[in-house]
Amino acid sequence: MKKYKRKVYLQDKPRKVAVEELLTHFRPRRETEWIDSNKALGRITAEPVFALNSMPHYHASAMDGIAVRAEDTFLAHEQNPIQLKRNEDFVYVDTGNIIPSPYNAVIMIENVDELSEDVVEIIEPASPWLHIRPIGEDIVQEEMLFSQGHKIRPVDIGVLLASQTTKIKVMRPPVVTIIPTGNELIAPSVGAEPGKLIEFNGSVIANYIYEWGGAPILHDIVKDQPEEIKQALLHAVETSDIVVINAGSSAGSKDYTVHLIKELGEVFTHGVATRPGKPVILGKIKDTIVVGIPGYPVSAYLSLEWFVRPLVCAYLGTTEPKRQTLRVKLGRRIVSTMGAEDFVRMTIGYVGGEYIANPLTRAAGVTMSLVKADGLLVVPSEQLGYEQGEYVEIELLRSEEEIKSAVVFNGSHDLTIDILSSYLRAQSNSAKIISSHVGSMAGIMAIRKGEAHMAGVHLLDPVTKQYNLSYVKKFLAEQEVVLYPFLRRKQGWLLPKGNPLDIENVSDIAEKGALFVNRQKGAGTRILFDLLLREHGIEPEQINGYDREMFSHLSVAAEVKGSPKAVGLGIYPAAKAMGLDFIAIADEEYDLLMTKSFFESDRGQQLVGIIQSKEFQARVEAIGGYSVVVNAEPRNLQ
Amino acid sequence: MKKYKRKVYLQDKPRKVAVEELLTHFRPRRETEWIDSNKALGRITAEPVFALNSMPHYHASAMDGIAVRAEDTFLAHEQNPIQLKRNEDFVYVDTGNIIPSPYNAVIMIENVDELSEDVVEIIEPASPWLHIRPIGEDIVQEEMLFSQGHKIRPVDIGVLLASQTTKIKVMRPPVVTIIPTGNELIAPSVGAEPGKLIEFNGSVIANYIYEWGGAPILHDIVKDQPEEIKQALLHAVETSDIVVINAGSSAGSKDYTVHLIKELGEVFTHGVATRPGKPVILGKIKDTIVVGIPGYPVSAYLSLEWFVRPLVCAYLGTTEPKRQTLRVKLGRRIVSTMGAEDFVRMTIGYVGGEYIANPLTRAAGVTMSLVKADGLLVVPSEQLGYEQGEYVEIELLRSEEEIKSAVVFNGSHDLTIDILSSYLRAQSNSAKIISSHVGSMAGIMAIRKGEAHMAGVHLLDPVTKQYNLSYVKKFLAEQEVVLYPFLRRKQGWLLPKGNPLDIENVSDIAEKGALFVNRQKGAGTRILFDLLLREHGIEPEQINGYDREMFSHLSVAAEVKGSPKAVGLGIYPAAKAMGLDFIAIADEEYDLLMTKSFFESDRGQQLVGIIQSKEFQARVEAIGGYSVVVNAEPRNLQ
Repeated sequence: MKKYKRKVYLQDKPRKVAVEELLTHFRPRRETEWIDSNKALGRITAEPVFALNSMPHYHASAMDGIAVRAEDTFLAHEQNPIQLKRNEDFVYVDTGNIIPSPYNAVIMIENVDELSEDVVEIIEPASPWLHIRPIGEDIVQEEMLFSQGHKIRPVDIGVLLASQTTKIKVMRPPVVTIIPTGNELIAPSVGAEPGKLIEFNGSVIANYIYEWGGAPILHDIVKDQPEEIKQALLHAVETSDIVVINAGSSAGSKDYTVHLIKELGEVFTHGVATRPGKPVILGKIKDTIVVGIPGYPVSAYLSLEWFVRPLVCAYLGTTEPKRQTLRVKLGRRIVSTMGAEDFVRMTIGYVGGEYIANPLTRAAGVTMSLVKADGLLVVPSEQLGYEQGEYVEIELLRSEEEIKSAVVFNGSHDLTIDILSSYLRAQSNSAKIISSHVGSMAGIMAIRKGEAHMAGVHLLDPVTKQYNLSYVKKFLAEQEVVLYPFLRRKQGWLLPKGNPLDIENVSDIAEKGALFVNRQKGAGTRILFDLLLREHGIEPEQINGYDREMFSHLSVAAEVKGSPKAVGLGIYPAAKAMGLDFIAIADEEYDLLMTKSFFESDRGQQLVGIIQSKEFQARVEAIGGYSVVVNAEPRNLQ
Repeated sequence: MKKYKRKVYLQDKPRKVAVEELLTHFRPRRETEWIDSNKALGRITAEPVFALNSMPHYHASAMDGIAVRAEDTFLAHEQNPIQLKRNEDFVYVDTGNIIPSPYNAVIMIENVDELSEDVVEIIEPASPWLHIRPIGEDIVQEEMLFSQGHKIRPVDIGVLLASQTTKIKVMRPPVVTIIPTGNELIAPSVGAEPGKLIEFNGSVIANYIYEWGGAPILHDIVKDQPEEIKQALLHAVETSDIVVINAGSSAGSKDYTVHLIKELGEVFTHGVATRPGKPVILGKIKDTIVVGIPGYPVSAYLSLEWFVRPLVCAYLGTTEPKRQTLRVKLGRRIVSTMGAEDFVRMTIGYVGGEYIANPLTRAAGVTMSLVKADGLLVVPSEQLGYEQGEYVEIELLRSEEEIKSAVVFNGSHDLTIDILSSYLRAQSNSAKIISSHVGSMAGIMAIRKGEAHMAGVHLLDPVTKQYNLSYVKKFLAEQEVVLYPFLRRKQGWLLPKGNPLDIENVSDIAEKGALFVNRQKGAGTRILFDLLLREHGIEPEQINGYDREMFSHLSVAAEVKGSPKAVGLGIYPAAKAMGLDFIAIADEEYDLLMTKSFFESDRGQQLVGIIQSKEFQARVEAIGGYSVVVNAEPRNLQ
């Protein structure tokens, strides 16, 4: 019964080898359908499309006027007006009318002097074919309009309709069934009970498939029961072009997927040399490709792109789009392991004329790392990583413009930064603040390294009892910066509703054995807490939970909310947002540290203008626990 | 009654000035709506979105196993197994279960030895928080997920559902009513009668509006009657955020639009300094912006992008996307006039390691020039143009990859080139042939200038009576090229059904006063015709229509089809396609001239492989009038 000996080893197949193999196994049905051309936007042509008629389909007048024989008009001149007789020398035509034989030019009605019902006078010659749109000027009948595999754009609909090609043959979108599995999962809803996790990967996968031109079918959640999964797979492979099964692709005791696919068909690949995304299964049941993708969201979406998108494109006969790349400087060192491709989600800021990129968390479970990412750094498997300051090419997840116009905020987390960003964006659609919550000290360092325009800081000096000033002087003595007073805010104990342990001060935390939810080193709040400990003569070892670090006020509050014995230190709005009790212990000065060039720039002054607006100040103060510093002037750094 | 004195002058307002003015007049209603998050793909957030709950929303086991106190396990080792008692030292947990207090780590069931119902043994220590997903690991309640003006992507739907944020407030798409006007227009249909033109601009405009995030309403076609246009405008401005009226925006006698908008509201701009696109009207009726765009398709779509897209983006609170640009070398000189921005549709080929761009027709009525364009060259208004060989930045209308992988074909037009392209594409989704029909001589020159990989040529030498060889030797003596025998094809007279003028030879054309539909100088067919004239002692002046030039066999055939007195010279398949009579007069050798490096490349050899396949040959010969040269070898150029 020694279960712990059991191990299933995953392969380390290079991703590109796995994709190529997969494609050789794919025998798409490639079904087609005829649809109305005016409903074809975004559809893919199944075969070359030829124009059914010419446009124009006859020699058409391009103007309202008279149709003439050009040669009759050659001598016309202001000094030599020429008179023409109706139905002998000319006929009246309107825009779009047929040009009858033998006429070969049109004179605009504005340039015609109508002397009588039947006689007109002209004073300018007309060249042959003037104001006539010849047959096929735009499109010639039988001309090839598009090759197969062409994605129909709005202008393409124009040439289809113009040439009376009112129906075209397009690819039927491949049906991709997505099977989510897991006992812990429930369908998306509000108020999910503890012990139940929302199944959201399925919806994300379905939306990607749709974007890529497939027809997704999201199957109901299937329990981790081999028989149930088997039934779902057998049904799906009969009704789909591709089947995606989510989770159960790893090597654990309840990871049935690989065994089931082997039993019902064959498995080509189990495990690819990537990080994240390794535990992928590529196989086939009854001639339908089955892709088993990992449960962690980031792994799921990356492996979907690697393996399912090429199948959808192969079905449709299109090329996979490639992302734009951008050359950036690395703000931090990137460590990677040999033998696996690493996919690192990166933020990119445009500061001081350079693109600076920094990694987000590499945890595969953090969907927000993909949401926040500006780009993806792909570290090849033979590469051990990159040094800080090195230049690398990054695949962009946002447009270069959007990255270029963003204000890069770093440092301590405060909820009002989001509000500031939304005011900024309301003024200029292209602008916003991209913020990383790294704590006050890291914010100062980001300004020092030229990685941010602006940092939020609230650092209490234990000696002077002043906020921020001494830190800025110490660490940024060599640099041109501005320290702009922004907020006064209440710091205090975040406590579960009703304060069950009756905590009032830092001694209570140690004595009553509360679980303290701490902040990361360098955070202003952490420095404040350490100061309190020293003042009360308490050692960190006496504090339960001291070593575990949270990166924002909201994370601390969420943690406190989850445990009746917990207590945290943080700002009032975080307590209010989570419905916690709050005991104020300090009135902090939260300043904005900016590079001088940013402060003086249009964007910087725009931000200052917003901060000093009555509307913004009222909005922030309505949250509670805040006051904005009115008519602030940069602090004196001399 | 001297009507020809009347003139309305259009303004020459710089485009950017006109846009800025327009935006200051725009007072969008910016209505919003709440929608289900899982249906939000592509929608634009109306306000910042905050997470309603954390993900996970409790401390959740990440594995099936046992929850333990980490500190109890620190000494576990293969030499020192530790036994734990159920419900005292551990509890069983499955993936997604809550971790009950006081447990703080999970050991995978695979690593647990179950000694009895209540006792297990472990041999590895667990660190605190091992295999536990803490509250908010991915998303923290109240965290800002997106700012306003954010376009929802598939992964964004993931974080919305995961955080139980099941509804979000998005912008209602702005309603854009499109009013097509014109007496000559009919709704898209098959079999439009001569004298009626298909209204297709409206459908194109509606599809662009939809792509940009608006809600288009395509109004029925309105006649060029002031009262009808007035009623349509008055109704549209009441029910729309933006109104687009197509055509009637110029300065002619039936161009009522500008007068009507002035009468009902105000006009800010009539005429912008662009080519094409000049006769634009920007105005306002009852607080609704009305944009009058020109009737020519290319002008219409360009001006729509310049003036209507910014309005849609302003309504939604998004930024206008910018196109990628590419640095290219100009294959031909581009002439531009001072004082107007020029928008030149360009083809781009990647030949010999360089991107070479050439202008397509600049006629604003040729929709196909936009369909075929790889990019758009914007010549600033103060610029007189560019020289051949100069490097310029081009806005891309196709991806760089697609351009890079295309085979650039130049020279004489033949229908089989399209078939060859579709076979190539069926083999490699990313490959295709981009062809310009410029005639045989221009094809030779394109190879000489390094602008094409391949050219189709059929040039009869009047002296040697041989095809192609003498021309290639003369013009490409210095270059490494391959002349590959491709087709034998029938050239002959293209005649209206029944041959009403009873044409049999070139003398008949002159004597019977037929209207000859000629080809452009340098085309193989033109050279053949000129040779026939010389042989029969006929002067060009004796040929009716000699001076008007068509650029393809199909254009000639379309022209012949449209006139009972016409006759053309061309290939049999063109006659067949248009239902014409055909009298063969020559058996041509249509060869493929290639650069040697292309011929020897993988792509070149792939093409040769297709040409020599039985399937391709059968397909081409089925058209009639063709035979493919079997087992062809490059001709000897020594």
